[in-house]
Amino acid sequence: MKLSDLITPVALIDVKRMQQNIDRMQSQTNRLGVAFRPHVKTSKCVEVTQAQVQAGARGITVSTLKEAEQFFDAGVHDILYAVGIAGNKLPQAAALLSKGCDLKILTDSVPSAQAIVDFANAKGLVFKVLIEIDTDDHRSGIKPDAASLLNVAKVLADGGMAIHGVMTHAGSSYDLNTPESLANMAEQERSGCVHAAERLRAAGFACPVVSVGSTPTALAARSLDGVTEVRAGVYVFFDLVMHNVGVCDIEDIALSVLTTVIGHQEEKGWAIVDAGWMAMSRDRGTQKQTTDYGYGQVCDESGNALKGYVISGANQEHGIISRAGEPDLDIVKRFPVGTQLRVLPNHACATGAQFPEYQALAATGAVTTWSRFYGW
Amino acid sequence: MKLSDLITPVALIDVKRMQQNIDRMQSQTNRLGVAFRPHVKTSKCVEVTQAQVQAGARGITVSTLKEAEQFFDAGVHDILYAVGIAGNKLPQAAALLSKGCDLKILTDSVPSAQAIVDFANAKGLVFKVLIEIDTDDHRSGIKPDAASLLNVAKVLADGGMAIHGVMTHAGSSYDLNTPESLANMAEQERSGCVHAAERLRAAGFACPVVSVGSTPTALAARSLDGVTEVRAGVYVFFDLVMHNVGVCDIEDIALSVLTTVIGHQEEKGWAIVDAGWMAMSRDRGTQKQTTDYGYGQVCDESGNALKGYVISGANQEHGIISRAGEPDLDIVKRFPVGTQLRVLPNHACATGAQFPEYQALAATGAVTTWSRFYGW
Repeated sequence: MKLSDLITPVALIDVKRMQQNIDRMQSQTNRLGVAFRPHVKTSKCVEVTQAQVQAGARGITVSTLKEAEQFFDAGVHDILYAVGIAGNKLPQAAALLSKGCDLKILTDSVPSAQAIVDFANAKGLVFKVLIEIDTDDHRSGIKPDAASLLNVAKVLADGGMAIHGVMTHAGSSYDLNTPESLANMAEQERSGCVHAAERLRAAGFACPVVSVGSTPTALAARSLDGVTEVRAGVYVFFDLVMHNVGVCDIEDIALSVLTTVIGHQEEKGWAIVDAGWMAMSRDRGTQKQTTDYGYGQVCDESGNALKGYVISGANQEHGIISRAGEPDLDIVKRFPVGTQLRVLPNHACATGAQFPEYQALAATGAVTTWSRFYGW
Repeated sequence: MKLSDLITPVALIDVKRMQQNIDRMQSQTNRLGVAFRPHVKTSKCVEVTQAQVQAGARGITVSTLKEAEQFFDAGVHDILYAVGIAGNKLPQAAALLSKGCDLKILTDSVPSAQAIVDFANAKGLVFKVLIEIDTDDHRSGIKPDAASLLNVAKVLADGGMAIHGVMTHAGSSYDLNTPESLANMAEQERSGCVHAAERLRAAGFACPVVSVGSTPTALAARSLDGVTEVRAGVYVFFDLVMHNVGVCDIEDIALSVLTTVIGHQEEKGWAIVDAGWMAMSRDRGTQKQTTDYGYGQVCDESGNALKGYVISGANQEHGIISRAGEPDLDIVKRFPVGTQLRVLPNHACATGAQFPEYQALAATGAVTTWSRFYGW
């Protein structure tokens, strides 16, 4: 199959770029002397995850139990479900354990820990549980110094659960854009999580795992003393948000949407394409960053970025391509009806999720279909 | 099955509200004396579409040829593909014709019309083609007075295609929010499209169909003289954007996301739920409207809106619920871990698209799974 055979819109993976991204992150975590556990929520694709495992990943991170089920069925056993578990999902988690999955679950409160204990005790199970630590004030987790850390550990230990360790995610690193601020955030993430682990150990609890990570902090970290594993997800494809954060070049972005020009509004300098928000997603992650790429950076059919051309507006199945600043009044000649273009996404996790499958484009030009899943 | 049996997040349809929305739109178009052709891109669900057809819809509108294929297989024959067709999709359209589908396609330029003619002539086919008219300057289409309207018609007629009519969509009605401005936009949409039809007829071309519509203009129209059919999509569920536009009450919104509280940040007044942007979508359509609902309006488990509580932040599988204005420092007691809530979406088309299935909640409390599809 060739690119020109594809019916647009298509989620295209540049396999060479993807492999370079995988190798870069694996080298970084090897250099820092920690295990790497990729977050597969970005791709939800077996072939992509296999490439990460082959490069040296030890286990995976998931954002849904459906991901855990799908990747366990595909042969991955060591799985961390990195979202505080809701009580209604405990039977699903138990079913994975009973099939032999080495699943770890997460909590950050006494009521949630108690729900885990009550369910597990009623079923005669032991869950491996990590305690979520809040090192950057952006979402869930217990502050490293908070009293509730030991309360949660006590509920788990008294209830017979295996305290597997502590986990944090400095997602606010996405708001930064200098090497120094990223390195500082990586250190804040590391030191906070290690401190929480030390408090648990000092109080007599086991805490074998200290798990940290986000794509920006994983790449910016200068030392990870006390950390046992790093997690990162979007690095596998990268995207325009990550480019604005400063951790990848435009030429590293491995996911794009192949689209076709279907019309124009010549006097406005618009080309209309068949990639609207259903294909690109509604993610406008670059809106508040240094460079706003609209709904995506336009590239030619070969993937070379066409500076200044973005999808500036999107309806469900229509994208409007225009040039930033002065309208391009030669747009009809530049991008005639039928022209194929690639568009780099703001956020690879969100754009990938719009597609039932990727088309994997090898350096040879060959195209292979890789399926992906969605839902819960 | 009951609500409490469901593993969250879940896309929930309130079937009674949906049926009321369907009946309202069908009554409105009946009253105006035009056929109604619902846009099924909103639901991509056979059961929802069947309810629209049973209420009196004549044919359907689709945004992708996959929708055409799926609904043709489900028994719908009269289908309008309402996006200017890319050349690479013509074989797919031809395959539908050959199976007996009464498919209509769309163009708005000479090159696109020529591509249709060239393909059809090579295959010995005749497509029914509508010409897209731009009545509100927001996206695709030919201006009602533009010379190219007759040029496109000539290419189609000379090439042996069946000119089926003209079609317009005043999508900029989404930017309005008063009855008068909506009625004016409906009249602008009507008069522009009818004028284009009259120009075609005066030049000797057939133009049996004059198709207009968007949910706001369809509901606001006072007369549709010269129009033969109306299209609308999101009315079937409605959403917060449509509420801000002023065409539905909060209590009319038939789609919500059922979610579970998984944690808190008590001192910030946050409850964390398992509906992040993967469930709600990244659509922030109310951001620039009168009332910004964040990623959605929070309701109790029974669907009663909890004024002031919205999903104010969202990561992939985490939503942050907070109260607008002053933080709710009683949030832990108000929404304990395990609490189920419903969240009304900004944009039903985008939120629905995140789910492989809906759970249809009948007035009796019974829950039935309705599958939906995605992709192209």
